[in-house]
Amino acid sequence: MRTPRSLAPGKELMKSRISDLRHKIKRLETLINTSMVFSGILDIDELLDTVMQQAEEVMEAEASSIFRIDEKNQDLYFITARGEKGKEAKEIRVPMGKGIVGWVAKHGKPLLVPDVRKDKRWFGGVDEKTKWVTRSILAVPLIVKGKVIGVAEVLNKRGNRHFDKGDLELFAALGNQIAIAVENASLYSDLDKLFLSSIRAIVEAVDAKDPYTRGHSGRVVDYALLIGQAMTRDKERLKEIEISSILHDVGKIGIPDRILGKPGRLTRRERNYMERHPEFSAAIIEPIEMLKKLTANILHHHERYDGKGYPEGLKGKKIPLVARVICVADAFDAITTDRPYRRRKSIRTGLRELQRNSGTQFDPRLVKIFVTQFKKNELS
Amino acid sequence: MRTPRSLAPGKELMKSRISDLRHKIKRLETLINTSMVFSGILDIDELLDTVMQQAEEVMEAEASSIFRIDEKNQDLYFITARGEKGKEAKEIRVPMGKGIVGWVAKHGKPLLVPDVRKDKRWFGGVDEKTKWVTRSILAVPLIVKGKVIGVAEVLNKRGNRHFDKGDLELFAALGNQIAIAVENASLYSDLDKLFLSSIRAIVEAVDAKDPYTRGHSGRVVDYALLIGQAMTRDKERLKEIEISSILHDVGKIGIPDRILGKPGRLTRRERNYMERHPEFSAAIIEPIEMLKKLTANILHHHERYDGKGYPEGLKGKKIPLVARVICVADAFDAITTDRPYRRRKSIRTGLRELQRNSGTQFDPRLVKIFVTQFKKNELS
Repeated sequence: MRTPRSLAPGKELMKSRISDLRHKIKRLETLINTSMVFSGILDIDELLDTVMQQAEEVMEAEASSIFRIDEKNQDLYFITARGEKGKEAKEIRVPMGKGIVGWVAKHGKPLLVPDVRKDKRWFGGVDEKTKWVTRSILAVPLIVKGKVIGVAEVLNKRGNRHFDKGDLELFAALGNQIAIAVENASLYSDLDKLFLSSIRAIVEAVDAKDPYTRGHSGRVVDYALLIGQAMTRDKERLKEIEISSILHDVGKIGIPDRILGKPGRLTRRERNYMERHPEFSAAIIEPIEMLKKLTANILHHHERYDGKGYPEGLKGKKIPLVARVICVADAFDAITTDRPYRRRKSIRTGLRELQRNSGTQFDPRLVKIFVTQFKKNELS
Repeated sequence: MRTPRSLAPGKELMKSRISDLRHKIKRLETLINTSMVFSGILDIDELLDTVMQQAEEVMEAEASSIFRIDEKNQDLYFITARGEKGKEAKEIRVPMGKGIVGWVAKHGKPLLVPDVRKDKRWFGGVDEKTKWVTRSILAVPLIVKGKVIGVAEVLNKRGNRHFDKGDLELFAALGNQIAIAVENASLYSDLDKLFLSSIRAIVEAVDAKDPYTRGHSGRVVDYALLIGQAMTRDKERLKEIEISSILHDVGKIGIPDRILGKPGRLTRRERNYMERHPEFSAAIIEPIEMLKKLTANILHHHERYDGKGYPEGLKGKKIPLVARVICVADAFDAITTDRPYRRRKSIRTGLRELQRNSGTQFDPRLVKIFVTQFKKNELS
């Protein structure tokens, strides 16, 4: 608006002002709708990509990025990088205080740079590596509870124009929302790590009671996920496999030491008791409301594909899929580690043994996947 | 705006339109700033109260509430209820489909009721119970991923006015934000419950190995929190007490059965081994990054206030506060439950025994708090 307030504006000017205001309302409404997208804290990457896509639209920008501060390294890394060279950019880390983004992170203030070539703070390191040409930048700090946790930026206003003050205000508001989404996702992911690492630590202590099974559950998780990742990309499903695997032997807490650590072969009676460990594991999991649905995965991890396993002699597809996965992973670790009654076999022999028992002890499809994945990952 | 589009508006009308648009911008900006408040998923009650306070301001409403749907009971309960009669309202549950709120929950559509007395859906049950007089209601569904999880409403536009369509649009946008905050908080709280209930279930299995300590860790948590809640309202601090208490004996996983379950008195050697359990507990916790800071609370729960405890013979305030709290809680449970070598003593005797050893074995301040709280809570 170029008319000073003191002059009564003419009709044309008023029309243009109304049009300006309408435009502003449209943008504000888009911004509010954008924040509706912040609907989950689980798929943060996907979420932020959608948000930045909308941000680019509102800001009429050619590209955009979100950076997170790494406190330990005192630098910034990309969480999202959209635009032509986004993929290349993601590899790069920006030192604290360096360039526009580093400056915003260090000072916790937004920065509008209409022409980067005229700004001393401009560093150009990312452009050099990505062959992208930045003309103008609008960068805002992501602040949570007074602390800068990252930076969001949009690059190059479309149509060779510059970002202006209105853009800055709008993007700063969006920055606040992004900051919250990023922080919420971190809190959730920290708690998730705490949950998994805690049960893992306790289970490892149970494994360690028997020197022969030290580290067993952790390895079974790795093997089970190797199969799982080849079957699905569904995060919930993979989490289910991970938690079921880590807890499959937790019931060994209930097995007396003299059976668990016995150097020689077990008597029939001892073996019967030992074979109750899936039931004990299931009994520990069952009362936990959110894990109840995993009980069957754990209870049946010693069933055999031919129905000759325990505790219920379930056969084939009647055995829950995750239980069949754990069965393969569990057996492979048992074969390839020392046991009181025999020395460990080689990886190669282990894989062959799985194949030999495919269709009898193991689900043939899962053996195939495991062997393929294991070789592909060059773990062998 | 009363002028049809085809007529060229006069200057006065244009002025009023500009003023309308400015007002709308002001409200949209407030809404965007409101959403900045959504900064944490931990203090959801506090957060929603602040948000609704701002919502009342923007909507010029006398009161406001947020309801959550209880899927099991097929009814709605208040999460927040602001306004004169908020406290009274919070006790009430609204059946699904009943009244304005029930209608919005059932149909998943917003509802603008300028005069409740003229609307057939109006039920009035909450007014009756709270002696509040509702004139007009604006209620929007809280929808997450296509599913109605609750309802937000504002009541009685100030100055005896009615809510209008503009209010509805604005409040619907805010509703989307509230929905996300409520959902995020639920996801976080579910995961937190999963974490606590999982370690609790595993620890209970460890306790159960020795029939004399069945349920021990759970009771120690209750006793320790009884002391903790009298000392602080800081949620983080209380969580720290809870997690430290639940894990204080987890190291007993490492104690052989023959010592743990021995019916008679332990030999000196066995006792030495038994007394290493705080070290074993600490060793399990220490590698877990987010629990590392609790290690000392667990390691020192058998220190005595007079310095004659183990493992390090720390004295007085040198013993971490939480370790001193667990010490009192742990001893009280040991005294009041059966042991292989003696029968359990009464609650009264237990409290007296704590007092008798106050200043020698126990921190006198904590004994005082525990005895007071225990009697106050009529657990005795």
